[in-house]
Amino acid sequence: MRALTIVDGSLELRDHPTPEPGPLDVLVEVRAAGINAADLLQRQGLYAAPPGWPVDIPGMELAGVVVAVGDRVVEPLMGRRVCAIVGGGAQGSLCALPSEHLLFVPDHVSFEEAGGFPEAFITAYDALVTQGRLAAGQRALISGAAGGVGVAGVQIAHALGAEVVAVTRSDEHHARLRSLGANETITLEEVGSIDGVDVVLELLGAAHLNAAQRVLNRFARVVVIGVGAGRTFELDLLAMMGKRITVTGSTLRSRSRDEKAEVVRRVSESLVPRWTQTELEVPLARVFALEEADAAYAFFAAPGKFGKVVLRVDD
Amino acid sequence: MRALTIVDGSLELRDHPTPEPGPLDVLVEVRAAGINAADLLQRQGLYAAPPGWPVDIPGMELAGVVVAVGDRVVEPLMGRRVCAIVGGGAQGSLCALPSEHLLFVPDHVSFEEAGGFPEAFITAYDALVTQGRLAAGQRALISGAAGGVGVAGVQIAHALGAEVVAVTRSDEHHARLRSLGANETITLEEVGSIDGVDVVLELLGAAHLNAAQRVLNRFARVVVIGVGAGRTFELDLLAMMGKRITVTGSTLRSRSRDEKAEVVRRVSESLVPRWTQTELEVPLARVFALEEADAAYAFFAAPGKFGKVVLRVDD
Repeated sequence: MRALTIVDGSLELRDHPTPEPGPLDVLVEVRAAGINAADLLQRQGLYAAPPGWPVDIPGMELAGVVVAVGDRVVEPLMGRRVCAIVGGGAQGSLCALPSEHLLFVPDHVSFEEAGGFPEAFITAYDALVTQGRLAAGQRALISGAAGGVGVAGVQIAHALGAEVVAVTRSDEHHARLRSLGANETITLEEVGSIDGVDVVLELLGAAHLNAAQRVLNRFARVVVIGVGAGRTFELDLLAMMGKRITVTGSTLRSRSRDEKAEVVRRVSESLVPRWTQTELEVPLARVFALEEADAAYAFFAAPGKFGKVVLRVDD
Repeated sequence: MRALTIVDGSLELRDHPTPEPGPLDVLVEVRAAGINAADLLQRQGLYAAPPGWPVDIPGMELAGVVVAVGDRVVEPLMGRRVCAIVGGGAQGSLCALPSEHLLFVPDHVSFEEAGGFPEAFITAYDALVTQGRLAAGQRALISGAAGGVGVAGVQIAHALGAEVVAVTRSDEHHARLRSLGANETITLEEVGSIDGVDVVLELLGAAHLNAAQRVLNRFARVVVIGVGAGRTFELDLLAMMGKRITVTGSTLRSRSRDEKAEVVRRVSESLVPRWTQTELEVPLARVFALEEADAAYAFFAAPGKFGKVVLRVDD
């Protein structure tokens, strides 16, 4: 099979042996695979794949069709349209992964859109709901709202009945974020003066948190899943005590097989029905062919895009 | 009744009207009342009592005898030896408080010791167990370990079957902390080089956390309840994500009546039986008469003491 391959910090399309699914795994013929910040870090040699995943094939999410199943898989999965997060190896024509990590793609959704769903929506759901305990009527503040996870977070928080404040630098994106459910759209400079919030989905890091920590309500939960705009942050411990605030750092990629199965199960129950009913969507900033990976990664790295960047994998 | 009274930043013994217990409250004749950092802040005008509590009488914990009960109290509480946390007003001869906030004092325990139990042990239990989810076999790091809450935390963590690392500046205190259950006793300078820990009970603040954040295990929980040694802290967000760490700030004093009842219930079930069986103790740094409050507060504020400072309240 062919796959994007990291060779000395560059991407090349190379042939690889067909992956062998284990007894409880499936083999997916990949039709589309989203690009994530982790892929760029991995290409630079800064973020190794966790054990058990391809070391040199990037890609943390995919959509495609199940073409083989392990001996002990009992569910009828052959031929199903699926999408999934993986620990690496999504950006190739075939990928083996645990059968319990699959999400079923709704009929109306294209593979390109589905290839941009799992990482963003699972990450945002886990951060906002499982860790942030966001509830209806509460206020969520989402930084980096125009990116893949941000756009997912805005829709999820809105679907849960929360009030959503979306932070993005581009004025153009404000209208699109409001159409996806944001109640307020603001720039980074305006964060310090908004009304109090209960949950922060932190996708930027220190640059945003310095302002956001001034507008936290009592019992606020801050879930940090991205630090592109500042890795160290001056936390005000006394204010944190007075308001009984919690700050949690999180990643998905390094979780165990069982932990991932649990978060996939929750998303399957909570979000996939809403996706099927077109309450959720995957805005695509742009779709590239696998052969255009360099251009796709460069486009992903540049500011100003809205939504996901996805690689199309042709037969 | 007579009570310590804050008058323009000083303490005076003054007469006050007898407090009136509400329908579900009790009136306690106070025999002893611990001193806490909050009392010193309140004397300076920096920490007002929460609504519903005496504004000018310090004292957040007491031990004594129930001498009156509200109309709707059904439990037979009259004459019982009790101790409790209160929102303020403990350092006087009488104090009214919710009946559901009482802990029963074991027969073998003096009022002086009991007067130093509730704030320290409830605070440490809530932070280590309820918020920090400390479990047997895990490692707890406790800063400021020679203070009232620290000494309670060391004993609680040890009683739960955790491994305890106690941090204190005084070499003299190391042996006493080991006799209370600490497995390792270290100074602040040594924190950065210990083996990984799962829960941090943070009583000092930034000065300790800067080192402690380098020795956190995956999934570590840091519970911040004191910031005397530094209020702002440079949190490494990327490390926090990689290890999926949680930092929580907490206080007891501002909690609602029901929240306090819940934490008292847990301590009553989990710790009072161990206290009765002499598994837990309240080391007293020194006991002062209520009339010696200035000297007592000064002694409390000075470094080098081990355990609680308690005011004795004579009839």
